[in-house]
Amino acid sequence: MVIEYDGTDFAGWQRQPAGVTTVQGEIERVLCSVLDEEISLAAAGRTDRGVHALGQVASCMTTSSIELQRLHHALNSLLPPSIRIRDVTEAGESFHARYSALWRSYRYVLALRQSALGYRFSGTYRGKRPPDIDRLNRSASLLCGTHDFSAFSKKGSDPSSTICSVMEASWSVGDGQLVFSITANRFLRSMVRFLVSATLELGAGELSDALASGRCPNALRPAEARGLFFREVGYEPDEMG
Amino acid sequence: MVIEYDGTDFAGWQRQPAGVTTVQGEIERVLCSVLDEEISLAAAGRTDRGVHALGQVASCMTTSSIELQRLHHALNSLLPPSIRIRDVTEAGESFHARYSALWRSYRYVLALRQSALGYRFSGTYRGKRPPDIDRLNRSASLLCGTHDFSAFSKKGSDPSSTICSVMEASWSVGDGQLVFSITANRFLRSMVRFLVSATLELGAGELSDALASGRCPNALRPAEARGLFFREVGYEPDEMG
Repeated sequence: MVIEYDGTDFAGWQRQPAGVTTVQGEIERVLCSVLDEEISLAAAGRTDRGVHALGQVASCMTTSSIELQRLHHALNSLLPPSIRIRDVTEAGESFHARYSALWRSYRYVLALRQSALGYRFSGTYRGKRPPDIDRLNRSASLLCGTHDFSAFSKKGSDPSSTICSVMEASWSVGDGQLVFSITANRFLRSMVRFLVSATLELGAGELSDALASGRCPNALRPAEARGLFFREVGYEPDEMG
Repeated sequence: MVIEYDGTDFAGWQRQPAGVTTVQGEIERVLCSVLDEEISLAAAGRTDRGVHALGQVASCMTTSSIELQRLHHALNSLLPPSIRIRDVTEAGESFHARYSALWRSYRYVLALRQSALGYRFSGTYRGKRPPDIDRLNRSASLLCGTHDFSAFSKKGSDPSSTICSVMEASWSVGDGQLVFSITANRFLRSMVRFLVSATLELGAGELSDALASGRCPNALRPAEARGLFFREVGYEPDEMG
């Protein structure tokens, strides 16, 4: 399944105890009632509270033989309008939305002027001067390649490994918005939001030091969740079944 | 003041008894605390519950000599993020946001595909076939000119007059959206939302009949509030002070 959601009113992707509304919890509840069996979803990215998705990918196993188009329609009829299933396909047996993913991409949007209509979907630009896009892109280019990103993640959240390979990281400006785009094989918890703040607020030297030492300047806070969009996931074409 | 708002969580523009949150109520409360006097706002358009604004205009009289830039900043600091003051200017003494307005324009957005991120800001296109933009524009052109629009308003809401002069009405399509734009000297209650449904659902003959007779087909319902944006208001240049 490819899924779009407005994360504002959800406590993130990951299922939580009863009483806490999450995107995974909502979709599993509806899948369970449509397929009449317990369903456990695997997702390409476990987005945090308040983070949005344009193309989250989730997979599950089912013994149901329901027609895909009927399933697609039933899900969108029963889910809240802030979650839309964009596509449902049958995948190969070895496919797993999380483990089969080759790369993920995120986008972070900062509004350059306050906007009532854009508030839900953008962070606030706090710079006193207009953004220097060349400087931002020189900082972003330091992130490319394989590095230990432990300076730029929530502590104690990802015990397995803190090494990520960034394939692309860049800033662009237009239409009253400043946008950060990043693609990597994997991301640590809150990593994109830390990198947004780091490229905006740190000098190139400080950024390189933090990357090399694994220690982040104390004052650096991750950018607000509401500007972050989980955009797309890449798989081997034949993995998609 | 030029005002932008996300109308989703407001019971419309117009002030209501305590406990009901409206845009006018919120701005008057904040103005009152900043200027330290009772303020009553006049607005160019009293938008309904759930309707948004890109360029609402409101005016008031004050004896305060507060600097405009300070007032502007104080208002945006104290108002909720779903209401943003875009501009504050001093107007001539005879200026009145409602009575001085020469024309108002609205835009109505219909989403052609379901979208989680666009849900707050678009109505649902219910047509079984893709929209026929030429047919829609032939219907829209029937609205231009001076007519009695009583067929297309909430009954019993506008006792003064039901005559409006429409200067421009058109449909356009692009970027997954179908958009209706209309400019007139004045609008009746729910008129734009009725005209959206009328041009989408009625044949040209039915539409002309309704306009001539003042009677609307029973089944016609106004389009959903969440797709409607109050866009802009026109004044004589010298009226602006």
